[in-house]
Amino acid sequence: MFDFTPYAGLPKTAEEAKKQCLLANRILANENVLDGYGHVSVRNPEAVGTFFQARAVAPEFVTIDDILEIDLRGNVVTETKFRPYGERVIHSAVLADRPDVFAVCHGHPHEVVALSAVGMPLRSIGQFCGMFWKPLPIFDAYSPGSGMLISESQDGERLSRALGGARGIVMRGHGFTMTGNSVQQAVMNSIFFRDNAKMQLLLLPFPGAEVKYLSEDEGRSAEKTQYSDISLGRCWDYWIARAKKAMPDLQEF
Amino acid sequence: MFDFTPYAGLPKTAEEAKKQCLLANRILANENVLDGYGHVSVRNPEAVGTFFQARAVAPEFVTIDDILEIDLRGNVVTETKFRPYGERVIHSAVLADRPDVFAVCHGHPHEVVALSAVGMPLRSIGQFCGMFWKPLPIFDAYSPGSGMLISESQDGERLSRALGGARGIVMRGHGFTMTGNSVQQAVMNSIFFRDNAKMQLLLLPFPGAEVKYLSEDEGRSAEKTQYSDISLGRCWDYWIARAKKAMPDLQEF
Amino acid sequence: MFDFTPYAGLPKTAEEAKKQCLLANRILANENVLDGYGHVSVRNPEAVGTFFQARAVAPEFVTIDDILEIDLRGNVVTETKFRPYGERVIHSAVLADRPDVFAVCHGHPHEVVALSAVGMPLRSIGQFCGMFWKPLPIFDAYSPGSGMLISESQDGERLSRALGGARGIVMRGHGFTMTGNSVQQAVMNSIFFRDNAKMQLLLLPFPGAEVKYLSEDEGRSAEKTQYSDISLGRCWDYWIARAKKAMPDLQEF
Amino acid sequence: MFDFTPYAGLPKTAEEAKKQCLLANRILANENVLDGYGHVSVRNPEAVGTFFQARAVAPEFVTIDDILEIDLRGNVVTETKFRPYGERVIHSAVLADRPDVFAVCHGHPHEVVALSAVGMPLRSIGQFCGMFWKPLPIFDAYSPGSGMLISESQDGERLSRALGGARGIVMRGHGFTMTGNSVQQAVMNSIFFRDNAKMQLLLLPFPGAEVKYLSEDEGRSAEKTQYSDISLGRCWDYWIARAKKAMPDLQEF
Repeated sequence: MFDFTPYAGLPKTAEEAKKQCLLANRILANENVLDGYGHVSVRNPEAVGTFFQARAVAPEFVTIDDILEIDLRGNVVTETKFRPYGERVIHSAVLADRPDVFAVCHGHPHEVVALSAVGMPLRSIGQFCGMFWKPLPIFDAYSPGSGMLISESQDGERLSRALGGARGIVMRGHGFTMTGNSVQQAVMNSIFFRDNAKMQLLLLPFPGAEVKYLSEDEGRSAEKTQYSDISLGRCWDYWIARAKKAMPDLQEF
Repeated sequence: MFDFTPYAGLPKTAEEAKKQCLLANRILANENVLDGYGHVSVRNPEAVGTFFQARAVAPEFVTIDDILEIDLRGNVVTETKFRPYGERVIHSAVLADRPDVFAVCHGHPHEVVALSAVGMPLRSIGQFCGMFWKPLPIFDAYSPGSGMLISESQDGERLSRALGGARGIVMRGHGFTMTGNSVQQAVMNSIFFRDNAKMQLLLLPFPGAEVKYLSEDEGRSAEKTQYSDISLGRCWDYWIARAKKAMPDLQEF
Repeated sequence: MFDFTPYAGLPKTAEEAKKQCLLANRILANENVLDGYGHVSVRNPEAVGTFFQARAVAPEFVTIDDILEIDLRGNVVTETKFRPYGERVIHSAVLADRPDVFAVCHGHPHEVVALSAVGMPLRSIGQFCGMFWKPLPIFDAYSPGSGMLISESQDGERLSRALGGARGIVMRGHGFTMTGNSVQQAVMNSIFFRDNAKMQLLLLPFPGAEVKYLSEDEGRSAEKTQYSDISLGRCWDYWIARAKKAMPDLQEF
Repeated sequence: MFDFTPYAGLPKTAEEAKKQCLLANRILANENVLDGYGHVSVRNPEAVGTFFQARAVAPEFVTIDDILEIDLRGNVVTETKFRPYGERVIHSAVLADRPDVFAVCHGHPHEVVALSAVGMPLRSIGQFCGMFWKPLPIFDAYSPGSGMLISESQDGERLSRALGGARGIVMRGHGFTMTGNSVQQAVMNSIFFRDNAKMQLLLLPFPGAEVKYLSEDEGRSAEKTQYSDISLGRCWDYWIARAKKAMPDLQEF
């Protein structure tokens, strides 16, 4: 019988949080949500005001020794010669503004970038994407000359204000920033948001289509079942098992 | 020469039925019809009124020890600490209402979920999908607050009534429930229904397209050739061989 | 340095022809042109009026011992307990009518089946598909009750007449039958015809698109470069190398 | 911790240049930008007026011993019995005309071929494709009878004149020729140009879409961040790591 990692919910120690950060990187790479770019942050449960995030490296190849500790102003706390991600200020700003958020994922799936360029609201088409019944805000206030990156503190803060209390935010021509009140939830949101974008794109050519999106009641209640420990845990186990199959060096985690 | 599992048709023993249930899970995961969710049920040939189904685990990682025995009211018969699928009531209701059905698959391929949201009838475009010449009914009567899941007995019974005598049913914003009078048939129906949805989506943008679907004669006769022992057995062998290649632990089955 | 199989052109012996038949099956499965169904025939260079073809098994798992010898009326010459493909009559009819044809592939890629259902002429969009500058005929004269299969001699003969002197034929709601004056050419035609269909589908939604297909001069001259020994040999080597990587049991061939 | 190849920028020796040429071939095959066709050229830093390029073999299977030295008139300098690519004249012409260009990639991704056939300008939709904010020129002046190939010196020179000072050029019904002032940049341009074409195709069916492409400021500044040593090096490392995972014989490089 397959030996599943028991669903642990929020990590209790810094060690566990770093491990969940590693797993989230690998899972999102393995499920084709992140490519050479993109990053994940996870709060440090042993310290107020710091979080864990990989050094500037592709998520598919992050290892446990790549995980840095960073504070909510974006300063790297870990003594290291490694370079952090320039866009860590997205994570520091959101984690500073949103005490309810435990983890943040930022990525650029092609489907989301494409839809963002036409400003189409991304809304739940399927039960498993029910948490997106309320369309996410769209950010389009890049600083001139910034290369559309969020590398300066004030850009991160502006993005965080645009996010407000939402589950995540679409960034025009760029990608998404997704939150979760656990690592598992942030990962699920990232994967299923991409899937929902893919399904919306499939329907684009339907002539005169009246797409029946999830109603508020459907969305709210589907969100609840999706975020239950049973559902989150089952998906988390599944995504880890798939990543371990594709990446043998993960076996020890 | 490749050592194919001989096509056995209906299982004669509980042991064989459990093995077919395991294989159906793995095949549908390997062919990308099921992901972290979805489930399969197979009647127990040694008992009236019970069926086999995995505990609540992703189909790709189901093992033989995960298979539970469940009765037609959805009660778990096997003594176990494992949790069954919440939606097992889909299977218990359909297997109770339809003596002709030997196996049921429930899944959520993106192509089917997308098309379900515009209420487009899914009809056979290709010979190998001939069994869908008569469009399936579409279910859209979820209980308020249910998260669009079918977790209560009365929901399962309502879905089963909507299914009636049809081959399967499309569930709006959710996926499909597919029947078969053998495990092989239920698996073939699930794979080819997804394929047909994919082909319909490819044609959506054809400007002013007059899609030539299969006629009733074409569909009825194609269905007959597809469901012949030769054709079912050849596909079943093929799908097993592919799953075994991707999942070495299946070798013993 | 990679040890490429030298391009051999037409096989000189029955042994070589059987080997090319095996490789064609595996290549077309590996490149996703054939799935559980589909078949390949190759003339026997040591006998007038017979060809080689696998027994009724999925192309991905054909082995050298599965290759049968069949005559131009569709009779199995090899003494065997194995069952041949029902649709071998496609191959016997075409090989009887077309002395210029050395090999035939029949398959059902989703892209071709989809386009066939709207009767859209498939025409060369790209240089490497130049051999399809002249749209193929479309067959839509299935026998009632035949399940849209070509299993009877007279159906095979009717299909062959519809094919005439063309490179191949599209079969509505079913797939394609492709010829080649070598195995390499039949395989190239099959792969690139599928690719061209895929590219045509990508352009379907272009609003008011004026697609610039290859002109007759472009097509004729591109066909010549594509069918040169250099180009055919390079592709053949490439497809074999990929198949061997995915299917270790091919190493000995 | 993953042992990344440090980002080396321009090669200092012929040996290094040949190695980068090998890696570029394998990366572009592994990322599905090149198939059986396509080629890469890299200037020889130890000689004025020669470059390295594989013999006529599929990029996925190029080895270090396949790399030939060729001069800017397209003559093979290496003493060898191997055949060079017929289209090496694309590379010799561009490298002769453009001292700023260090490497050239030529390929035929389906997405680019499809869009080229409708003459649609390919423009940056996403931040990571910012270097294409200025649409590339489209070449459509093939010599009659050439099979749409660029195999003669005068064809290569005409293509190079059409390219002018641009980053690359789209070739109608054929593919693209992409430049870079380093191998890393030419590879990044090739991968992200294909990705941008894919995203443009996803949006084709959007009814009345006003696609918001990158502005000139956004494009220019995104190009700068994408071409920084940090970003180029990180992507290069990532693509190499992925290629090594899929192609074990690359380990020594």
